[in-house]
Amino acid sequence: MDTIRVVAFAGGVGGAKLALGLSKVLSPNELSVVVNTGDDESFYGLHVSPDLDTVMYTLAGLSNPESGWGLAGDTFNALGMLRNYGIDTWFNLGDQDLATHIRRTQLLQQGATLSEVTLELCRRLGVQHTILPMSDQPVRTILSTDAGELPMQQYFVQHRSEPSVCGVRYAGASDAKPAPGLLDVMSQATMAVFCPSNPHLSLGPILAVPGIKQALETFSGVRVAVSPIVGGAALRGPAGKIMAELGLEVSSVGVARQYQGLLDVFAIDLEDADLASEIASLGIEPMVTSIVMDTEADKVELAQRILALGGG
Amino acid sequence: MDTIRVVAFAGGVGGAKLALGLSKVLSPNELSVVVNTGDDESFYGLHVSPDLDTVMYTLAGLSNPESGWGLAGDTFNALGMLRNYGIDTWFNLGDQDLATHIRRTQLLQQGATLSEVTLELCRRLGVQHTILPMSDQPVRTILSTDAGELPMQQYFVQHRSEPSVCGVRYAGASDAKPAPGLLDVMSQATMAVFCPSNPHLSLGPILAVPGIKQALETFSGVRVAVSPIVGGAALRGPAGKIMAELGLEVSSVGVARQYQGLLDVFAIDLEDADLASEIASLGIEPMVTSIVMDTEADKVELAQRILALGGG
Repeated sequence: MDTIRVVAFAGGVGGAKLALGLSKVLSPNELSVVVNTGDDESFYGLHVSPDLDTVMYTLAGLSNPESGWGLAGDTFNALGMLRNYGIDTWFNLGDQDLATHIRRTQLLQQGATLSEVTLELCRRLGVQHTILPMSDQPVRTILSTDAGELPMQQYFVQHRSEPSVCGVRYAGASDAKPAPGLLDVMSQATMAVFCPSNPHLSLGPILAVPGIKQALETFSGVRVAVSPIVGGAALRGPAGKIMAELGLEVSSVGVARQYQGLLDVFAIDLEDADLASEIASLGIEPMVTSIVMDTEADKVELAQRILALGGG
Repeated sequence: MDTIRVVAFAGGVGGAKLALGLSKVLSPNELSVVVNTGDDESFYGLHVSPDLDTVMYTLAGLSNPESGWGLAGDTFNALGMLRNYGIDTWFNLGDQDLATHIRRTQLLQQGATLSEVTLELCRRLGVQHTILPMSDQPVRTILSTDAGELPMQQYFVQHRSEPSVCGVRYAGASDAKPAPGLLDVMSQATMAVFCPSNPHLSLGPILAVPGIKQALETFSGVRVAVSPIVGGAALRGPAGKIMAELGLEVSSVGVARQYQGLLDVFAIDLEDADLASEIASLGIEPMVTSIVMDTEADKVELAQRILALGGG
């Protein structure tokens, strides 16, 4: 096999599944995962990066296998005490998880960038593959809804994705720069992989950082996305609901249209085989395969099938 | 009984015992506890006020009955994770306890003063008696030792009070002001009570805040201290060791001398009855009684005996 270098783009739980599969097949110098920070939030004065943590905990083998986010076996005693102090603790932070946010906040306050903090936390947890935030500058995914403007976590967790969405914007994106090294990683990569994450809430913010979409447009290797939609519904999260509310087709085709011009291959599920020709008509090669990743074996096998596209 | 208003001065665990006894006997408007903040520290970017928390948790009925500090039944999972991040976690912070420091830090960063934060935390935990930090400005108790200059918690916890002490100073004290309302509380009080706390590390910092010692010198009510020393040794902590290293007599007499001019009555233990005349010779009335407070009944009874001096 020729040298392979993969840059993967991921949001939270769904994206982390494929990132884990890739990390099981690729050596540390062969894989970099670029992670959405559009739903970073300040809780109780602490800087929380939900997607970075989900990917980091997953690659460290520490994530909660039931929920996909947070740490396995974590307790929630600090949160209970915060409630005693009258805090609305709508965002669930475990005690061990809090240590991550405490340490991140401390390092940021000492002047470290989010990239530097991420590197340090990953190193300490034994994550050897590279995890990069999409940007060191703050970008905030904001949904326009019938309950008003809602930042992503407020929409997703506090409002349980219930309000109807009529628009999504990425506040601060135009002033943000790709994280240091990110464009270098992309220029050296032989393959770009869009993990099965929400196109509007996870990959949208990444693509909104000036320079990243352009680097994908001129990318010299193979660009592959895995659909987050199977049979007309999102595998998890509100992707389908939001696409419907935005007037988009809730299907792999609808997602493929979002990425037109940025993709060579689009992996859709066996169940959606009938959509292959429509995807081909967008100028994107369809790859019909099993994309549901329930077990670690599923994740590794999907990673292997994707990597085979790189010409192994 | 005439109106009684007590201002008590306290450090950590020892002081909190008598403060609890007083709180069981006095109504909320009859008791204010002024607490040392000379060993406040920043841990992992969080503002920790060990003595304020000990007094607050004790009066809230939440303190750990074994150690006297921290919260009963607390867990230490965040601390374990901080260790994974390579942090030297020499200061033990429980998960529920962390919530206090997170909330305090958040409020301070939002511009609240330490007094305002303390009031808010106490209110939320149902503490009805007034707890005041000695000052809203930072004062730092620093020990000169054979291991170098050590801030109080570093000396006490990290170095387990082992280095030999040749001096104690209260950095920042000359620029500090008594917390808002503190001098008013003192001017309206009918009794001032020095809880059995370390004279150098707990009450020393309070007395070093300009205005507090002066208010005690001109205090119109009865001024009573309870000795932290029984039979030539401190009831807890390094008070005896430090006094010896500073060349002071390790006895209730030695402590009384520290407070000369500020005290009317000094409560010493039955075991130290032979020291009564020496204390009297300092111009301080000795009160020989049981001052060891093992049970809540001990605390209440000692409080009642002290309050009787106020002429009930």
